[in-house]
Amino acid sequence: MDEIQKQFKLAAHKYNHAIEHYLECYNLALLCLEKIRSNSNLRYFGKFSGSPGVDYLVVENAGVISRPIRKDLFVSDIAELEKEHKLLISRLQNNLTKPEDLAAANRVIYSLVMSFACCIDLWKRTSRKTPGTFFEIVMAGMFKLALPEAKFFKHINLESALGERHERDGPDEKIFLSTDLVIGAENANRAAVIPLKITTRERIVQAYAHQRILDSSYPDKYESFLACISETQLDTKTTSVNQICVPGTIKLYQRFLGELSALYYADIPQRYLAPDLARYVPVKLLPHIFEDVKNTIYAP
Amino acid sequence: MDEIQKQFKLAAHKYNHAIEHYLECYNLALLCLEKIRSNSNLRYFGKFSGSPGVDYLVVENAGVISRPIRKDLFVSDIAELEKEHKLLISRLQNNLTKPEDLAAANRVIYSLVMSFACCIDLWKRTSRKTPGTFFEIVMAGMFKLALPEAKFFKHINLESALGERHERDGPDEKIFLSTDLVIGAENANRAAVIPLKITTRERIVQAYAHQRILDSSYPDKYESFLACISETQLDTKTTSVNQICVPGTIKLYQRFLGELSALYYADIPQRYLAPDLARYVPVKLLPHIFEDVKNTIYAP
Repeated sequence: MDEIQKQFKLAAHKYNHAIEHYLECYNLALLCLEKIRSNSNLRYFGKFSGSPGVDYLVVENAGVISRPIRKDLFVSDIAELEKEHKLLISRLQNNLTKPEDLAAANRVIYSLVMSFACCIDLWKRTSRKTPGTFFEIVMAGMFKLALPEAKFFKHINLESALGERHERDGPDEKIFLSTDLVIGAENANRAAVIPLKITTRERIVQAYAHQRILDSSYPDKYESFLACISETQLDTKTTSVNQICVPGTIKLYQRFLGELSALYYADIPQRYLAPDLARYVPVKLLPHIFEDVKNTIYAP
Repeated sequence: MDEIQKQFKLAAHKYNHAIEHYLECYNLALLCLEKIRSNSNLRYFGKFSGSPGVDYLVVENAGVISRPIRKDLFVSDIAELEKEHKLLISRLQNNLTKPEDLAAANRVIYSLVMSFACCIDLWKRTSRKTPGTFFEIVMAGMFKLALPEAKFFKHINLESALGERHERDGPDEKIFLSTDLVIGAENANRAAVIPLKITTRERIVQAYAHQRILDSSYPDKYESFLACISETQLDTKTTSVNQICVPGTIKLYQRFLGELSALYYADIPQRYLAPDLARYVPVKLLPHIFEDVKNTIYAP
C-alpha cells in the first residue's frame, strides 16, 4: 500500500497545483488492480433483488471485505482495461455519444475508481475520504482531455455578485463558494458546477444548497451536474446488496431548493429510473456528463 | 451492553409512539455512567490549545478510547448528577434563565448524552448513529417537560402550502419535510424547528436547506434553532483535541440560504464566540434553547 499511497499523494498534489495529473491517476488505478489481483480474492457476494436482479462481487483479504462491486461493470483484466481505456481517451477527445461507446466508457471509469476504493477498503480503512478524492481527480482529468480549452476552478467568488461589501463583514472577509469542480469557457454565458460523490446519501443536500446559492447570486449563470458512482450498501447478514435511495428527498429539493440539470451514475440505482423521478430530474449513465457539460459551456 | 441496548430500544420505541419516554432516557444514562465507572478508565487525554486552553478527558477500555469529554462539563459522580438533574427538571418546569442555573443544566445534559455516546464508542462502535438518536430523544423529553402544552411533531406538510397539487406528482404523492423535531402551540403564529446533531461538520447545510424550504413554503412561520453538543475531534498523534469549525460556511449559508435563529452548543467551539460570527448568528449555551423556543411559540 505504500506505493499506492505515494502515487495517490503525487496525483493529488499535481492536481491541486494545476499540473497535468491524469496519467498518474490511471497508473495508480492499474497498480491497485494489480494489488487486488495478487493479494486478494475477487469473488461473488450477492444480489440486489431488483427487477432484474443485479449481481455484485467483493474483494476479500484476511476476513476483510470491500464495498460491493457491480459484476457487469467491473473490468478486472488489465489488458482488456488498457485497451478499453485507450478507446475512451480517444473518444473523449473526439466524440463520445454512441450508446455502446458510453457503456464502454462507463465500465472503464467504474473500474478505475472502484479498484482504488477497494484497495482502501481492504488495506487502509481509516482513509475514508481518499476514494472520493480519487474519483474527483480522475473525472477532472478526463474533463481536461475532453475540454482542453475550458477553464477549471473550484471556488466561486460571491462577493462580486453582491455588488458591494456586506456591512457585517470585516475588511478582509472573502465570500466564496467552495465546490468540487467548476468548468467554464472563455466568453461563455453559462458554467457547469460538478459535485462529485462516490455515493451521496443525505449529503445530496449540498449540491442543491450550492445551486440555490448560485441562483440567488448569479441568476442563470451556473448549472449543476451531480456525478456519482452508486448508492450501494452491503448487507452482510443476508449477503445481499441494497441501493439506498431517497426519491422523495430529491423531488423536494428539486422543487423547493434548486434545480440540478441531471444526476449521473456509473451504477444507476434502479429506483432512480422510475418515471416519477424522471419528471423532476433526468438520471443518466455517468459518461453522458462529458457531452452535456460541453453543450452547456459552449452553448451559443 | 445488552441491558443498555435494550433500554435504548425501549426509550426510542416509546418516543416514536408518543409515549412518555423521558424517564427511560434518564435511567439509561445512569446505567451508562455506572458501566463507565465499573468497566473503563476515565482519564485525562489532552488540551484544546485555545485561549484559554480547554481540558478534555476520555474513557478507555482494552486499548479503545472514546470521543473527547470536556472535563469541566462532565459530571461522573452519580449522586451529584442525580441532585443536579432534579434541580434541572424543576427549573425546566418553572424557570430556567439564571446564568448559574443554565450552566448547571448544561453540565447535566452534556453528561447524560456523553455517557451514552462513550459507551457506544467503547462497546458498540458500529452503532454510529445511536448517540445522535439518544441526544434527540433526551432533548425532546426535556422540551416536553418544559412545554407540556405544546405540540410535537417531525414532519411538515408542504402540500397545503402549495395550494394545489403539483402537476409532476402522481395522485398518491405526499410532499413533506422530515425534520428532527418541530414544536408548535395551539393558535401560535410561529413554530420552532429544532435540528439536533451531536456534531455538525458539513451536515450543517441541512439545517439551512430546511429553513430555506420552509421560508419559501410558509413565509415567517418557522424559526430554526440548531442544537449541538460540540465540534470536537481527537488528535491521537499529538494527544490534543481539535474544534472543527466552519465560520465562513456558516456566514455564507446564513446570508444566502436561510437564517437560523441561533446555534446552541453544550461545549461551544471557541471560534464561534468571535464577534465576526456573532454579527451573523447568535451562538449560545445549549439550555438557552428552552426559553428561546418557549418565547417563539408563545409570542403574542
